[in-house]
Amino acid sequence: MEKPVKLVLPEVKRPILIEGYPGIGLVGHIVGNFLAKELKMDMIGYVESPFIPPMSIVLEGKPNPPLRFYGKDNIIVAVADIYVPPTLVNEIARELVRYLSEMKAEKVISIGGIGIGFFKDKMEVWGVGAREELNKKLEEAGAKILQYGSIMGMSGKLLWEAGREGLEAYVLLGETFGDRPDPRAAANVIEVLKKLTPIEVSTEPLIKEAEMIEEQLRKMHEQMEEARKRAQKQYESIYL
Amino acid sequence: MEKPVKLVLPEVKRPILIEGYPGIGLVGHIVGNFLAKELKMDMIGYVESPFIPPMSIVLEGKPNPPLRFYGKDNIIVAVADIYVPPTLVNEIARELVRYLSEMKAEKVISIGGIGIGFFKDKMEVWGVGAREELNKKLEEAGAKILQYGSIMGMSGKLLWEAGREGLEAYVLLGETFGDRPDPRAAANVIEVLKKLTPIEVSTEPLIKEAEMIEEQLRKMHEQMEEARKRAQKQYESIYL
Amino acid sequence: MEKPVKLVLPEVKRPILIEGYPGIGLVGHIVGNFLAKELKMDMIGYVESPFIPPMSIVLEGKPNPPLRFYGKDNIIVAVADIYVPPTLVNEIARELVRYLSEMKAEKVISIGGIGIGFFKDKMEVWGVGAREELNKKLEEAGAKILQYGSIMGMSGKLLWEAGREGLEAYVLLGETFGDRPDPRAAANVIEVLKKLTPIEVSTEPLIKEAEMIEEQLRKMHEQMEEARKRAQKQYESIYL
Amino acid sequence: MEKPVKLVLPEVKRPILIEGYPGIGLVGHIVGNFLAKELKMDMIGYVESPFIPPMSIVLEGKPNPPLRFYGKDNIIVAVADIYVPPTLVNEIARELVRYLSEMKAEKVISIGGIGIGFFKDKMEVWGVGAREELNKKLEEAGAKILQYGSIMGMSGKLLWEAGREGLEAYVLLGETFGDRPDPRAAANVIEVLKKLTPIEVSTEPLIKEAEMIEEQLRKMHEQMEEARKRAQKQYESIYL
Amino acid sequence: MEKPVKLVLPEVKRPILIEGYPGIGLVGHIVGNFLAKELKMDMIGYVESPFIPPMSIVLEGKPNPPLRFYGKDNIIVAVADIYVPPTLVNEIARELVRYLSEMKAEKVISIGGIGIGFFKDKMEVWGVGAREELNKKLEEAGAKILQYGSIMGMSGKLLWEAGREGLEAYVLLGETFGDRPDPRAAANVIEVLKKLTPIEVSTEPLIKEAEMIEEQLRKMHEQMEEARKRAQKQYESIYL
Repeated sequence: MEKPVKLVLPEVKRPILIEGYPGIGLVGHIVGNFLAKELKMDMIGYVESPFIPPMSIVLEGKPNPPLRFYGKDNIIVAVADIYVPPTLVNEIARELVRYLSEMKAEKVISIGGIGIGFFKDKMEVWGVGAREELNKKLEEAGAKILQYGSIMGMSGKLLWEAGREGLEAYVLLGETFGDRPDPRAAANVIEVLKKLTPIEVSTEPLIKEAEMIEEQLRKMHEQMEEARKRAQKQYESIYL
Repeated sequence: MEKPVKLVLPEVKRPILIEGYPGIGLVGHIVGNFLAKELKMDMIGYVESPFIPPMSIVLEGKPNPPLRFYGKDNIIVAVADIYVPPTLVNEIARELVRYLSEMKAEKVISIGGIGIGFFKDKMEVWGVGAREELNKKLEEAGAKILQYGSIMGMSGKLLWEAGREGLEAYVLLGETFGDRPDPRAAANVIEVLKKLTPIEVSTEPLIKEAEMIEEQLRKMHEQMEEARKRAQKQYESIYL
Repeated sequence: MEKPVKLVLPEVKRPILIEGYPGIGLVGHIVGNFLAKELKMDMIGYVESPFIPPMSIVLEGKPNPPLRFYGKDNIIVAVADIYVPPTLVNEIARELVRYLSEMKAEKVISIGGIGIGFFKDKMEVWGVGAREELNKKLEEAGAKILQYGSIMGMSGKLLWEAGREGLEAYVLLGETFGDRPDPRAAANVIEVLKKLTPIEVSTEPLIKEAEMIEEQLRKMHEQMEEARKRAQKQYESIYL
Repeated sequence: MEKPVKLVLPEVKRPILIEGYPGIGLVGHIVGNFLAKELKMDMIGYVESPFIPPMSIVLEGKPNPPLRFYGKDNIIVAVADIYVPPTLVNEIARELVRYLSEMKAEKVISIGGIGIGFFKDKMEVWGVGAREELNKKLEEAGAKILQYGSIMGMSGKLLWEAGREGLEAYVLLGETFGDRPDPRAAANVIEVLKKLTPIEVSTEPLIKEAEMIEEQLRKMHEQMEEARKRAQKQYESIYL
Repeated sequence: MEKPVKLVLPEVKRPILIEGYPGIGLVGHIVGNFLAKELKMDMIGYVESPFIPPMSIVLEGKPNPPLRFYGKDNIIVAVADIYVPPTLVNEIARELVRYLSEMKAEKVISIGGIGIGFFKDKMEVWGVGAREELNKKLEEAGAKILQYGSIMGMSGKLLWEAGREGLEAYVLLGETFGDRPDPRAAANVIEVLKKLTPIEVSTEPLIKEAEMIEEQLRKMHEQMEEARKRAQKQYESIYL
């Protein structure tokens, strides 16, 4: 383990890599873990580094390393349960693109969120490809093309590095309020992802989760509003 | 000492390693030191590193290094008297698993606490093994199986790394309030440990220590309650 | 990528390098990006380093690395979208001067701003060359010669290192208020730059941008002034 | 100077090393410098490291490095005029023990203070040896044996490392209030030291220094007490 | 540039090095720059390091590196326009002493200030040599001998390291108030320096500069005093 980072990954021919490291709205994180679970993927590899905090993530009664890969057929999903510092992101991206080039990856798709700070009826999915011609495929898949902006972290790095190696690389960013985990944004991204890849999965569980969260927030608001009104009345009955 | 960490340890054939580095409720720390003392184990090795603070721990009039190993027969107990920073934990875990693999370790058992923030009649011991079949052994030994969660520090790292090498690795976590040293949680863990290993030891001294601490806290509470009541009465006699 | 920094750049014979890294008034940054766009230059290279934050800059629907080079004919423009830390500046400068020496660069011109904290009718452009005889060329091109001062960052480092290699190196610093991006200072610098190089470009778009910004500031001031007067009158009508 | 630390020291056959790096009550520091001066020892060596702050300590009109060794016959005294950071302590201890092993050191005695936060008639000297049989010698020399505790810094590290090499190593800790330099505690330690080594020296100058400091503190207290009483009387004469 | 520091310096036979890095009262800095200018010395070398901030110092319309050497005949003056961090000081001192040993330096004289926090008629110059016999030369040159104290930074390091190599090394410290640049202290030091070296220069420009600064401070004081008196009178006319 002389190198700062080592990928432990089996050979996968012409893989489709989907990266879902944590970021705004945890959109990538939710997408990655949802796909791994719904598609019944196996944990097939992980990232090894002395700079990753020592820990095990226990899932279904089994220990897992915090940065790991799930696989099924030629789909590989990269997930992380912790925030990964910038220099480590650079090293992992470098090793990952090396692997993907060797395996002649079919597609490299990074998932993230884009914080917009408000809600609207149709939360969009923005995308950008490593080359101009890829943007057309994204539009056909239902994404709006990001013309200007900066994409931080693993997604931004993978897009550039994989594109430089001639790989078919994309970033998909789901619009999200930005201050909370957003399963609905994850569902929106997956709908686009389904058109770019052979993945078949229903996003209903994510929508249900989103509705549950929204319902809870609604109730909390109502209660706060009622409490406010009661306090107002009490105040008026005393002083006015 | 070119490597950042060096283990000084004698050959021990098919050892059972019990790791008790400090953590929540100091459960691992208490278990490790209690076993070393009650089983009359000898200090048989230590961890050497320029990144460990310079210090001697004096015990029974003799100096000891802060990260050390106690041994008797094929039992090895790893204890630490200081907090060990993450990168050092990773390096120590790597060297330790290398040693345990070479020695064909029989079992690797990490001890820790799980903070629950309240008290209940039966504080449980949670466990997880490196592989599915190991969880059955844990259940038979009286532990509840941890299905989801993250295990930080040396325990989490050892579980994953030792498991990856095919070793029989476990983590045992005693439920504890979480804000104070908890000898009762340590005793609970030892009861499970006794069923997993040939260790024979009475946990009564730990229970007694726990009762003493609890008695002191109870008295403190009573005195505070009385003081509160006195103040209340005085207040009432003046103002009401 | 064993070296901390690697330049990916094609052979360009006798290049003229124009450096526009961010600094006071973003003068260099504005000049670099304006030239790249107006001269319809291509992105021809970039800086690679594990110490550059992982990110893609999306421009016109395409990903770009944050430190990159634009080129057309023998003109190379170096731009950065992020603040570059001192040690990295040193490493990049060293590699860049090595490249420029090998390519027998015709000219090396660093662009920056000089904060003066006030406005005046004619905001000057200050310049200094690596050798005495170069200052005459600067004066002929309309720059005032900087006699004493310190030039921080990439501009200062390039001037010294390129000059040491015998290259024709200059720094041009546009006077600017100092607390905001200043397209007018950028335009002023470009006018001098046009006399030093074969670059032909109209700075009118920058002037228009500057006027727009100034118009907005003027309106804001007027509104604040009116608000102040209204408040004053109200105050007088009540108390006097 | 490729190694982080280099000891420059002449050959001394079967040396007795006395270490007096700064710590609680500056006990070690006072002892080291007092012995060097009273025994008219020469500066015979020093520690060289790029991590030691650049500086000269001028003593009797001559420059000295901040970490140095005094010697006379087979006595070596190690003193430091600055706080030494933990990693550097580890490196120095390692080199020092290597030297002491090669020279077949007769004794290694570390001096420090133990803060007790109050004064008593007889401030004790606590000691601990690297091996059980050494504690007897300490007791015969008038020290109380430290059974439990942690010894931080150079003293703790030397005790463990020298002991591990089979050397006759001791730590002597003088009881001290803990918040001020304490020449009396230094004198107490020297009395024990004299019984462990052939050193002959009167500690009277240290006692005199201690009495002077104590006299000054006493006067300060008296003045404060009088001032308090005057204020009290004034208050009473006005309000009562 | 694999080493952290590289000195670029021509061969100078039996040089006299005068070091004037910044410190208390900027005494060394003022002396170094004053000598370079008055003796019409050329910039003959500089210090190269990736840890020196990227920058050019523009002097008389020419760029200069921040750590540089001026030379004329066998006199070399070392100046720095920035604060140099401790580890870099150590590395530079090491390389510099290596160079001075090879060149068989005639003398090594470090200049600094000693903050005394008050003014007196005759501000002294303190000095200390690397060996006892050198102190006599200092006394003859008009310096008082520093018996006890610590000399921080480049001056302290050079004194010790150069002395260790058998070079004739001195530190000269001009007494100064300590909170402001002090050209008068610089002049005082130069008077001593002139007796130790063949340097011939009038310190009148420094005295004039000092008088100008003092005159300004005097005026400021007078104005403040008058303002205070006016305020006092006004107060009295109203309330008394």
